Amino acid sequence: MYYELDNGITAPQGFLTAGVHCGIKKAKKDLALIYSAVPAVAAAVFTTNRVVAAPVMVDKIQLGKTHGIQAIVINSGNANACTGERGLNDAWTVLRATARSLGISEDSVLVSSTGVIGQYLPMGKILVGVDQAVPALGTEGSADAAYAIMTTDTFPKQAALRVPLEGTEVTIGAIAKGSGMIAPNMATMLAFVTSDAAIAPEILQHALRQAADRSFNRISVDGDTSTNDMVVMLANGLANNRPITSVQGASYQQFYAAMEYLLVKLAKMVVVDGEGATKLVEVRVVGAPNEETAVRAARSIANSNLVKTAIHGEDANWGRVLAALGYSGISFDAEQVEISFGHVPILRKKYVIDFSEEDAKEVLRQKDITITVALNLGSAEASFWTCDLSKEYVAINANYRS
Amino acid sequence: MYYELDNGITAPQGFLTAGVHCGIKKAKKDLALIYSAVPAVAAAVFTTNRVVAAPVMVDKIQLGKTHGIQAIVINSGNANACTGERGLNDAWTVLRATARSLGISEDSVLVSSTGVIGQYLPMGKILVGVDQAVPALGTEGSADAAYAIMTTDTFPKQAALRVPLEGTEVTIGAIAKGSGMIAPNMATMLAFVTSDAAIAPEILQHALRQAADRSFNRISVDGDTSTNDMVVMLANGLANNRPITSVQGASYQQFYAAMEYLLVKLAKMVVVDGEGATKLVEVRVVGAPNEETAVRAARSIANSNLVKTAIHGEDANWGRVLAALGYSGISFDAEQVEISFGHVPILRKKYVIDFSEEDAKEVLRQKDITITVALNLGSAEASFWTCDLSKEYVAINANYRS
Repeated sequence: MYYELDNGITAPQGFLTAGVHCGIKKAKKDLALIYSAVPAVAAAVFTTNRVVAAPVMVDKIQLGKTHGIQAIVINSGNANACTGERGLNDAWTVLRATARSLGISEDSVLVSSTGVIGQYLPMGKILVGVDQAVPALGTEGSADAAYAIMTTDTFPKQAALRVPLEGTEVTIGAIAKGSGMIAPNMATMLAFVTSDAAIAPEILQHALRQAADRSFNRISVDGDTSTNDMVVMLANGLANNRPITSVQGASYQQFYAAMEYLLVKLAKMVVVDGEGATKLVEVRVVGAPNEETAVRAARSIANSNLVKTAIHGEDANWGRVLAALGYSGISFDAEQVEISFGHVPILRKKYVIDFSEEDAKEVLRQKDITITVALNLGSAEASFWTCDLSKEYVAINANYRS
Repeated sequence: MYYELDNGITAPQGFLTAGVHCGIKKAKKDLALIYSAVPAVAAAVFTTNRVVAAPVMVDKIQLGKTHGIQAIVINSGNANACTGERGLNDAWTVLRATARSLGISEDSVLVSSTGVIGQYLPMGKILVGVDQAVPALGTEGSADAAYAIMTTDTFPKQAALRVPLEGTEVTIGAIAKGSGMIAPNMATMLAFVTSDAAIAPEILQHALRQAADRSFNRISVDGDTSTNDMVVMLANGLANNRPITSVQGASYQQFYAAMEYLLVKLAKMVVVDGEGATKLVEVRVVGAPNEETAVRAARSIANSNLVKTAIHGEDANWGRVLAALGYSGISFDAEQVEISFGHVPILRKKYVIDFSEEDAKEVLRQKDITITVALNLGSAEASFWTCDLSKEYVAINANYRS
């Protein structure tokens, strides 16, 4: 549908990135830098956790001053969360060093961290890392940056695509990290999105809010949310499209649709890489009275440990799906509910169950499984993505700090 | 504190029970009968799941007619949930057969089921079971009944105690089953409580509601709630105490305190027997502005897969506790929070962390662990009980139906 490109956040014009190893982690790149040749319009969404890491506090202050952002510096291996006054000072120091090294205004830099909570940043290493990253900036650096922000992720996540827009073209790219519980507590969900589109700041913020709600906020590895989660988008205008200044009209719609598509793609990568995940599960609730109800129902099913273990065991245990729907808090008539696993109808109206275990098993043997739940109450729908719950998940999380 | 007795729900005067094998399950007792020599005042709390099993619907109708109940018939192995009209008819048929066999009024019988969802009751077997259970009734049958209601539980759960009351004595006994996710979807949380106390129906209902809220509603194996959960209490008055007719006064307070103590004891047994559990974890939130806030905070921490896997790995990962507090939805100041594991202070105010990993490890090596979280906002507190999350949990739930 879209023309997809290889080079992630450096696909849009004017973006340079780097990923270097500064020694926070033993043998893995652990510091990423994203730079735009010109100040870019910025938008961001942050964790809703009441416990907020230092970089999140700093970025909220930065974005309160201006939406013109030119660089983002990100470290993995240490979350700089629950570090009090000293953690805040550390975040500001990293930010200022980055501005100095790049020769840009301090007001145009954002900072981000992911990793272990409650330990102070190893400042010496990070400041050396910043100085290494600046000369390493390049248009081929997206994969390095995607790699440098990883924690327990097993593969780097990036994607980019081109959107035709009123006779011209804009490009959108993104990198993300997740794992843990998507929105893991140690392992934080981070995503950075770049574009060369010309777009007004409030329109970009509106688009990012909605696209994040329909992608990263609709995935779940284990339902926990982190102190450090953030999605930041920069749009530098170098595509020279007629600026998007309203949510009305075709150009916004086209740009937004592409953005949502890209973010959903990244979000699904995050789920696939969920700790211990062996299957990607889409929970699709249809026939809902409104989107909010559909999301609530889908989330409840996707977060159920019992559903997730059943999928892991390739067991068509529709009773667990129905029970999770039952405690989701939405109103529905259980006798009207229909459930399918893949293309196989499992539960029909009035509790009629008549399916071949063979057919169900064939669906559940796949790596990519859709559970469709029809409420038969309206015409709204929503999807939520999750993974199965495996013994590996337990093994990874029982000893994360070690 | 209380004089504890051995024989569970037959400890109070006038109660007889039986547990028999009627063939729903291959080789395990699967049908229990509880009988009071005289009609008893009944109280009950039921699942809040929107999907409600047939026996729950039937019992709500029964209790709407009268609070004089003389028998409860319970089967394991089949939940009679999501079975529509036919399931309802089956539940009524079991209830009527029990009344007939005992020679008592149909209006004085309750029915309960636990097991697999979406399959019809094997009526032939159950009706034979009822006829076997009636002559088997006896004052030594509590353990048999506790055994007969088990599904994936690994041990039967019963307890009883004697309460001095204004110069006389009343006795309270209980059996319970849980496992799965305490309030498991297939494995349902059931508890049956008997007493020879004389108490007014509305006072008994009030007491049961509150005691259940502070015991079975404060445990979690995996956060799922079932279609079949119920706690039913019968009080037959044979102790000849001066009837408890008000929540004011010492006799209600003494009776209630003993009841809460007994139900918490049973609830903890359910957690200890949680699928794959190797540790009992009490999450105690203190210094809350009110009890509701304390419960909400404690529940969020107790339900976190990340906290539960960390405990399983004997890892003093206080960051996960704080993160779960952060998304609980309560208001608090993170810098004021203190966290202890057992007697070892881990996190102090203003994020001061200064503890010996050795001391923490020693606490976490125990089978019985208390995590205390001080909000330093007020004087209310609440406990929530959970277990660790192990690979065994995944193994059990990946293949429940098989």
